[in-house]
Amino acid sequence: MGRGHLSLEPEQIVRLEDDAVVLLDQRRLPDVVEEVRCRTAGELADAITTMVVRGAPAIGVAAAYGIALAAANREDLDAADRVLRASRPTAVNLAWALDAMREDPSAEHARRIHADEVERCRRMAAHTADLLAPGTRALTHCNAGGLATGGYGSAVGALLTSFERGLLAHVWVDETRPLLQGARLTAWELETASIPHAVIADSAAASLMAAGEVDCVITGADRIAANGDTANKIGTYSLAVLAHHHAIPLYIVAPSTTVDLATPDGASIPIEERDPAEVTSRFAARNPAFDVTPAGLIAAIVTEHGVHRAPYAGSLAGAVAA
Amino acid sequence: MGRGHLSLEPEQIVRLEDDAVVLLDQRRLPDVVEEVRCRTAGELADAITTMVVRGAPAIGVAAAYGIALAAANREDLDAADRVLRASRPTAVNLAWALDAMREDPSAEHARRIHADEVERCRRMAAHTADLLAPGTRALTHCNAGGLATGGYGSAVGALLTSFERGLLAHVWVDETRPLLQGARLTAWELETASIPHAVIADSAAASLMAAGEVDCVITGADRIAANGDTANKIGTYSLAVLAHHHAIPLYIVAPSTTVDLATPDGASIPIEERDPAEVTSRFAARNPAFDVTPAGLIAAIVTEHGVHRAPYAGSLAGAVAA
Repeated sequence: MGRGHLSLEPEQIVRLEDDAVVLLDQRRLPDVVEEVRCRTAGELADAITTMVVRGAPAIGVAAAYGIALAAANREDLDAADRVLRASRPTAVNLAWALDAMREDPSAEHARRIHADEVERCRRMAAHTADLLAPGTRALTHCNAGGLATGGYGSAVGALLTSFERGLLAHVWVDETRPLLQGARLTAWELETASIPHAVIADSAAASLMAAGEVDCVITGADRIAANGDTANKIGTYSLAVLAHHHAIPLYIVAPSTTVDLATPDGASIPIEERDPAEVTSRFAARNPAFDVTPAGLIAAIVTEHGVHRAPYAGSLAGAVAA
Repeated sequence: MGRGHLSLEPEQIVRLEDDAVVLLDQRRLPDVVEEVRCRTAGELADAITTMVVRGAPAIGVAAAYGIALAAANREDLDAADRVLRASRPTAVNLAWALDAMREDPSAEHARRIHADEVERCRRMAAHTADLLAPGTRALTHCNAGGLATGGYGSAVGALLTSFERGLLAHVWVDETRPLLQGARLTAWELETASIPHAVIADSAAASLMAAGEVDCVITGADRIAANGDTANKIGTYSLAVLAHHHAIPLYIVAPSTTVDLATPDGASIPIEERDPAEVTSRFAARNPAFDVTPAGLIAAIVTEHGVHRAPYAGSLAGAVAA
């Protein structure tokens, strides 16, 4: 791999080998392309916490492989489950995948979970493209791409399919401070796909909206509560308010594995506070990693089962049950 | 000077010596504290363009010294005026100071312009503090501090005076991408003044507002049109929309030298596009340096003459004439 040769095959992002879960290290992409080998559930949990792998669905896939590895290693599966479950608090896909692996901790099951997530992305992408008009200039935040989902991508997958259908004219990429997942990862994926794009400072989105240069906002999600309130990368709520002010639709694209019916609303979603040094190491800082967008500011939530509109409760419950 | 010893005396930020305009280099503060000596108007114009000195009032003061230096050097004053006037497009204080120096290009006049700007800051600060209740948690963007004005500061000056009066509990400091004037300059000034503060990613402001942790937003300005529309650092308009959504007042603190009665409204203000490499040097990017906040989203504009409320036209015209 290297610049211009990004293929993002699912097994390049996260895969299970005989003695390790192997992760593409997302912390210094695209400048440094290297892999990290995690030989125990504990090593994998550290890799999740430090964001070697990030993105809600990709974290879930990695954790599933971690359980399969622990089973092959004859590790204590309860202990492996606990350490992985505690590695990051906000994304619910982690808990979902661990719950699923309790029934069948085999490598085959983990690989099926991975393949299913990629397949969900392709279905979500088709549903989202159905919403867009030709010439769409979309704005996205963070990276909800192949890197975040273990292949193809949720929000970025929707952009790929829309571009293939001739509907997408341009993508504004929020750089996404503090870790710059937009400027590093999403821009890389879009460049690889030859989709016209420009990175912007997160704070520039509003004036582009005011200038009429944004037709829709498309993001992924880390957890969707039963009522449709959605936790995603810090800055998503800001975009939601700004889009609402400018009468621009916000579409959340996420698999049903991101919907948590046990969380009634956004106030119940735990928001991870990360090291202030990610923002600045010299002065006092606050660093919430996520925010919550109320369902009322979301034009539609797209899962692999279709396009959900407010009120979300019944429709999301149906998607999870499907 | 050095960390913990920041005094920000006006002559440390910008001063005239016999053979040079001497600027505190603001590009790598606070990590590197060093001065740049500009021996001609052309060198000074380069320093303004590259943001060795930045902040609308400070640019005006530097340009005034540049004309005085050119006069002492027997340079062509029309040529000096032209090169300085073209160095940055958005801040109107630059043109204001150059217009003023046409009548009297002496060093004494330039020093009086400098002293007057600092005195205006102290008066604005007192007027702004009158607006705040005890326990205020303010949010500010970019650096409208002593560094930006040649001493004391507009928005940050207002925070200093409010803190001295016991009204200010905490300041949220937008880091202000791409050049991080908040995380580098404003945090440094607040730390020096022992004012409690925390730097945040620009995109985190919205969720702090939603959580009820922001009582007001206070910023400076680069140009205020006759109708009150205000150009300021990119991201100010974003904060204005977010503050409006959360019913939080936005106060613009700026001297009357920032008001441009010849500009009828925000649509007439030229917005500087800077090098995309300031955002990212690897992928395509857009980098507007300023945005425009419509007067309707501004709770009050504070000049040295007092607190102006909508409709702004008559009141601002009076402030400029005063």
